[in-house]
Amino acid sequence: MPNETHTDITPIAWDDGVLRFIDQTLLPRELRYVETRDWRDVAAGIERLAVRGAPLIGIAAAYALALAARQGEPVDVAASVLAATRPTAVNLRWALDRALEAGRARRAEAVLAEARRIHDQQMADDRRMGELGAALLPSGATVLTHCNAGALATGGIGTALGVIKTAHRQGPLELVLVDETRPLLQGARLTAWELERAGVPFQVIVDGAAAGLIARGDVHAVLVGADRIAANGDTANKVGTYPLALAARAHGVPLYVVAPLSTIDRTTPDGAAIPIEHRDPSEVSAITGVRDVPALNPAFDVTPNGLISAIVTERGVLRRPCSAAIARLGAAAQAVAS
Amino acid sequence: MPNETHTDITPIAWDDGVLRFIDQTLLPRELRYVETRDWRDVAAGIERLAVRGAPLIGIAAAYALALAARQGEPVDVAASVLAATRPTAVNLRWALDRALEAGRARRAEAVLAEARRIHDQQMADDRRMGELGAALLPSGATVLTHCNAGALATGGIGTALGVIKTAHRQGPLELVLVDETRPLLQGARLTAWELERAGVPFQVIVDGAAAGLIARGDVHAVLVGADRIAANGDTANKVGTYPLALAARAHGVPLYVVAPLSTIDRTTPDGAAIPIEHRDPSEVSAITGVRDVPALNPAFDVTPNGLISAIVTERGVLRRPCSAAIARLGAAAQAVAS
Repeated sequence: MPNETHTDITPIAWDDGVLRFIDQTLLPRELRYVETRDWRDVAAGIERLAVRGAPLIGIAAAYALALAARQGEPVDVAASVLAATRPTAVNLRWALDRALEAGRARRAEAVLAEARRIHDQQMADDRRMGELGAALLPSGATVLTHCNAGALATGGIGTALGVIKTAHRQGPLELVLVDETRPLLQGARLTAWELERAGVPFQVIVDGAAAGLIARGDVHAVLVGADRIAANGDTANKVGTYPLALAARAHGVPLYVVAPLSTIDRTTPDGAAIPIEHRDPSEVSAITGVRDVPALNPAFDVTPNGLISAIVTERGVLRRPCSAAIARLGAAAQAVAS
Repeated sequence: MPNETHTDITPIAWDDGVLRFIDQTLLPRELRYVETRDWRDVAAGIERLAVRGAPLIGIAAAYALALAARQGEPVDVAASVLAATRPTAVNLRWALDRALEAGRARRAEAVLAEARRIHDQQMADDRRMGELGAALLPSGATVLTHCNAGALATGGIGTALGVIKTAHRQGPLELVLVDETRPLLQGARLTAWELERAGVPFQVIVDGAAAGLIARGDVHAVLVGADRIAANGDTANKVGTYPLALAARAHGVPLYVVAPLSTIDRTTPDGAAIPIEHRDPSEVSAITGVRDVPALNPAFDVTPNGLISAIVTERGVLRRPCSAAIARLGAAAQAVAS
């Protein structure tokens, strides 16, 4: 039985031994699913961003381990390969650890049960973050978001986009400004696609336009997801998030990071310790039609904790100073992680 | 006789009654020239960005008036049409006023003579700005630039890029980080093309990556051109400049605006009074292959004077507070403008 999703978008689903996921590189032109019984297809899908978004790659990796167990292959080896596909998002490692632990303690089928639990938990967490985050927004707000922190990134209603959808249902919102999010245009391709389906009014902008629009006074809040939150609250997210944070601060606009506790990595002390994935320079040059131009392609940047107004988690809203709030959550986070 | 350019790039030239300019929309794939005896082709070229860059559109508009005079058409009407093509860059209006004035005071051929003077003066001014700006950079510096403020934007060696080329000849520079500059990719297309021809090492980055790289400590200075500088020093430039200025300030990196006095508009008191051109939303959505997506496309943003370390002009380096320095330049600027 496929998972219940509480959204019309099902980016990933397990059905009778087959894992089915949307190839997000083809959206919005084509809604095509990959169906596989081989964990290696999942690893390849994560690496080429067919499956992306920190929570979703965690879910996908856990299901991939379930496939590996059914294939009779060593799950430890599969987990190592899966963990190496994307270095920055910590949910990947967290979900793999959970699924591995379940597999070790009990029989192989326990890996699938754990993957399902991770998936179901993320859907519930998204709804809770949606409610908590929506309460922070004034009615009729114009908000700005970056990349895609939606259903396509989590398997639920999304993190930052879950808040936006929830607020719009309660509100409605005036407008969502969507950073196109170069180089791979997750905003223009994926977030725009989700918002259109959800009936939320939006306009896509180039990433460089956000600061000027914030300065104009038209934006009430900036909402983003996260790929890894360090123990002190420093947050790695899609490249282009940090300049948004600077602009928001310069104009007194709150910046909310919306992320489940599984994105908080208390073993990483601060942003400087977060590994930043550098991807193929051709991702930058390909779209320009100017191949062979030298390019540099960091996929993430780090926003220091001082620029973050609050981190919205499923256990509550962590306000500045985030480091203290994260420390207080310690026991809870440990309980979730174990 | 074509103008002497002191560069291997000749974006515009007058030759025996024919105005010849590079169609910059086709670069770097194709180096094609438009040749015309009709001022309307120049107006259309400015509007569709075949000719772009604040100084260059001033030069092009002055030559266009010379064509109109030769065509026996009323230059006042032509000037109105040309002035309306781009609202933000003040050099356009400045050059038209100069050419009109010359035409009114003397015979029609005087318009051409004035256009040539504007062009020659820009070439000389670029060389001077290049020397003055290069003196501000440490040797072996890594610098970051946005959009194209090069030969293609001025007809000389360029403003910000003129400084970079001059510094590299004296230096050399370690690296130039080039913002690709969405939506029309003037950085990835035009600046990369110029730097490659000039033998200056560079890497193209997505606009959203600049802040993270500045935070990493690898950038010694940010250099940009300008489309209009208000009396208080607030500067309108290609959208995406303001977030660079915020990032530079946050990390103690100097931001230099390189622009001729003709870009300073002392009749505009501050940035809030600068009209910001909004262009067709399809410029944003076209490259994504996602047509019909709602988009917002402001072409410029405003950097407040307090974030600008210095404005490099042909008459000297204007340091903070820029408003006082601009006021002191008043007489000189008036002399140039009249």
